Amino acid sequence: MNVLWVFAHPERRSLNGSLRDEGVRALADAGHDCRHSDLYAMGWKPTVDRDDFGERPGPSDDRLIVTSASRRAHRDGTLSPDIRAEQEKLDWADAVVLQFPLWWYGMPAILKGWFDRVFVKGYAYGVTDPGHPGRTLRYGQGLLAGKRALVVVTAGSPEPALGPRGINGWLDHVLFPLLHGTLWYTGMTVLPPVAVYGADRLPPREYEEAAALLRERVTSIGDTEPLPFRFQNGGDYDDDLVLRPDLAPGATGLGVHYAP
Amino acid sequence: MNVLWVFAHPERRSLNGSLRDEGVRALADAGHDCRHSDLYAMGWKPTVDRDDFGERPGPSDDRLIVTSASRRAHRDGTLSPDIRAEQEKLDWADAVVLQFPLWWYGMPAILKGWFDRVFVKGYAYGVTDPGHPGRTLRYGQGLLAGKRALVVVTAGSPEPALGPRGINGWLDHVLFPLLHGTLWYTGMTVLPPVAVYGADRLPPREYEEAAALLRERVTSIGDTEPLPFRFQNGGDYDDDLVLRPDLAPGATGLGVHYAP
Repeated sequence: MNVLWVFAHPERRSLNGSLRDEGVRALADAGHDCRHSDLYAMGWKPTVDRDDFGERPGPSDDRLIVTSASRRAHRDGTLSPDIRAEQEKLDWADAVVLQFPLWWYGMPAILKGWFDRVFVKGYAYGVTDPGHPGRTLRYGQGLLAGKRALVVVTAGSPEPALGPRGINGWLDHVLFPLLHGTLWYTGMTVLPPVAVYGADRLPPREYEEAAALLRERVTSIGDTEPLPFRFQNGGDYDDDLVLRPDLAPGATGLGVHYAP
Repeated sequence: MNVLWVFAHPERRSLNGSLRDEGVRALADAGHDCRHSDLYAMGWKPTVDRDDFGERPGPSDDRLIVTSASRRAHRDGTLSPDIRAEQEKLDWADAVVLQFPLWWYGMPAILKGWFDRVFVKGYAYGVTDPGHPGRTLRYGQGLLAGKRALVVVTAGSPEPALGPRGINGWLDHVLFPLLHGTLWYTGMTVLPPVAVYGADRLPPREYEEAAALLRERVTSIGDTEPLPFRFQNGGDYDDDLVLRPDLAPGATGLGVHYAP
């Protein structure tokens, strides 16, 4: 398979850097091809702004409307070259690994800005569903459908505190905006994340376990059972895109969007 | 009150910009003082890197460990001047408004990078609890305790799709990493967020309603009932920081961290 490895840590000589090396070596040994977006090493610009869209100045300085400007720039081929280079890598990839340390229970800004800038309208979303006028292809269908996505995170927290009733919030739900709201939204097949806990003080034996887990997970990236998120257009949601009352009856919150 | 308004939209002439102007005017009319962090206008740098910490190069180029480097730089007064300027505004503030468009179900990268860079160890977290050796003051206690925080978001989604069973995830839970994992974590008093839905095509009447809501919410920022998040050190969590089994028995997910 063709695997794009997106890496968002400022220090190569870190736990994240070591794990990346392990994962990439395992992919190569298994015969996969790997390309890289090492965001810090690339000096990736995280901020969406007017410069992304390569528009000639209008009669005056027109108001910037991000979604329409990005769609137009994508259509006209005027997106900034660094964005187009990332899209070209994504086009090539059958699977994407997204690796980062959990900072404030989310992605480092540099990685959030990779999604903000690369996943533009017309490239990653915004295609009308011919079967449901007024709906777009999202959540299990869409322009990135067919690609697999694996999130790899390190967290300072011990595992119980990121568990189903842990104080930091259940990791699967804390990552919902990425796993469901971004990757599944664009149609990708989302695999259960790999998490390394207690990352600030990992003893050697636990490092070996984490490395072994990562090697196993990246080499099986093509056939791991994905998270069972519900499809938007599969009949589970009503016309307002609210889960039908007979499914997970009475329940609320993020867990209802997983099919049993 | 002293209010710091953090604004993360690239276009002043946007729905977000107009709402900000309404909110700021209402604060002034009510006699509050307001300072601003308009992140795009400031050219805010979102990316945590070695330059933040003002360290002289060591004997060789030492490995960067973000938490310890940031704590050391905060202690020694060598944090980059743009970070110290934001901390000085936060020190001044009794309340903080955080206003942004919801991009990929989270903050724009420029705002995520404000937290990543400003909320460093020793400034926003990392103080040992004298009452619980081995624990730090977090979640309802901490270095930013006493300050109030109000999140103001615009979302393209209609309200039902961000509701308790809506396909995009319940907004309160989608924002959990910010509301609970960042603001409550540092001890702040977190108010229910203000959300403006259908933001891509808001008719004038709905704009007026949104502006009225925002004016009401910012002028009552000092006495709005906060979200009832559980305190870490209030007895609800066990030694592993897992919610005690007699509280919200059998339930999992983010909702368990709200007290009834």
